[in-house]
Formats: sequence, structure tokens, C-alpha cells
Amino acid sequence: MSYYYTTTVTGITFSEAIERVTAELQKEGFGVLTEIDVQATFKKKLDIDFRQYRILGACNPTFANKAITAEDKIGVFLPCNVVLQEHENGSIEITAVDPVASMMAVQNNALGDLAQEVQARLQKVIAAMG
Amino acid sequence: MSYYYTTTVTGITFSEAIERVTAELQKEGFGVLTEIDVQATFKKKLDIDFRQYRILGACNPTFANKAITAEDKIGVFLPCNVVLQEHENGSIEITAVDPVASMMAVQNNALGDLAQEVQARLQKVIAAMG
Repeated sequence: MSYYYTTTVTGITFSEAIERVTAELQKEGFGVLTEIDVQATFKKKLDIDFRQYRILGACNPTFANKAITAEDKIGVFLPCNVVLQEHENGSIEITAVDPVASMMAVQNNALGDLAQEVQARLQKVIAAMG
Repeated sequence: MSYYYTTTVTGITFSEAIERVTAELQKEGFGVLTEIDVQATFKKKLDIDFRQYRILGACNPTFANKAITAEDKIGVFLPCNVVLQEHENGSIEITAVDPVASMMAVQNNALGDLAQEVQARLQKVIAAMG
């Protein structure tokens, strides 16, 4: 089972890709609540030179509220992550989690319906980037 | 299948619980890279009064580096979340994701071994809080 949606873009900078995906997420009602610069973290903590790799935590507050109300510990799977990484040839891959896959261990029908709605929106974001 | 480890504490404040779990995470090599104040987010975005609910994103850089090297899109499941929520009776529940459950859709043996190592450490953190 695949656990993500992904696409690769060329001809834009890493910063531009972050801006574009942030804008596409916003169209689907997601704000970016967290951002982890993995390259900088690995440099600082491990003194390793790693490629550009960013983890954005995207949250649609309405869906998040419904999800936590339906399943009070579901915050362990929130927000929904979008990863940007730069490959050796300069292309940038943008990957969104499939919330249906990440939450497959959760047995709760109300949550399953929500996960499918969020899945459809994240699919749209990735499709709009490609 | 359960997707988390959880424990409930009483007699300490919400801030103290955050400090304690942050210290326990540190003992197991996890730094807290992100923090989402769900109560504040719901107030600001939805004008809803919600209970105290915090999502900490915990990352062990050594394991994260091994995981991303083994499976380049695994960042969609990182960092490992620890949720703190205050219940009506004033008790505070602390819940860590089970990385083996969250990554069950990923077919990669190298990653499975890593997830089990991280699982054992997060279990220790929760046990130390209880």
C-alpha cells in the first residue's frame, strides 16, 4: 500500500517550491503550522551535510477539530505532513502523506470518513504542483 | 491494533507536564522540534473554546537520518508526536505515537527495525511519566 502522493517539479528554486505548495495548501484550507529544516537540523545535531529536505506540517483547523472530537488521541497523527526534497539533478520532489494510510491502525468509522476528505484535498494539492 | 502509548498524571500543571515529558524525551535522545498549541489554534481559527491540547514533535536526529536514508519519503511520518491533553477532572494525559503502527503501510524492512527501536524509547518515556 502506498502511503503518500508525490510529484516532481523542475525549473524552480527550493524556496519557490515551498511558497507554491504553501499557497496550494491554503486553497484547500490548510495552514502550515510547523516547518522542520532537516538539512539544518542534521548539520547542527550530527554535523552531516544533507540535501535540502523540509517537512511542512499542514493543518485544516475544521477537520482537525472534528478529528480530535471523534478520536481524542488522534493528535499523534496531526498535522498532515508535506515533504519537499531536492534531488541530485536539481529537481524538487513534493510528497504529501496519505492520511488514510497513516491512520490505518485506527479503528473509528467517523475518522475514516474525515481521513478520506483530507486525502482528496492533499491529492489535489499534489496534482496542482505537478 | 493500538496506535499509541498513553498514561495519565495528576497533581501537576499542564506546563509542568510539558517540561517533564520534554526532559524524559531528551533522556532517550529526542529533541522537541515542533509544538502546536491546539487550544490556541482552534480559538484563533475557529473561535472555539477547546481544552488544553498540545502536540509536541519529537525527533531523534540519528534515527531520523537512518530512516530518511532507508526510505526517502518517510519524512511524511516524522517527527514522532507526543500529545498532552487536560481532561475535565484536571488530570493530564500524555500519549506518544506508536511508530510501528503509524508506519505499517510502509514496506521496508530496514525501516521496520528502526521503528521498533524508536517504539521502545517512546514506551520508556511514557512509562517514566506514569
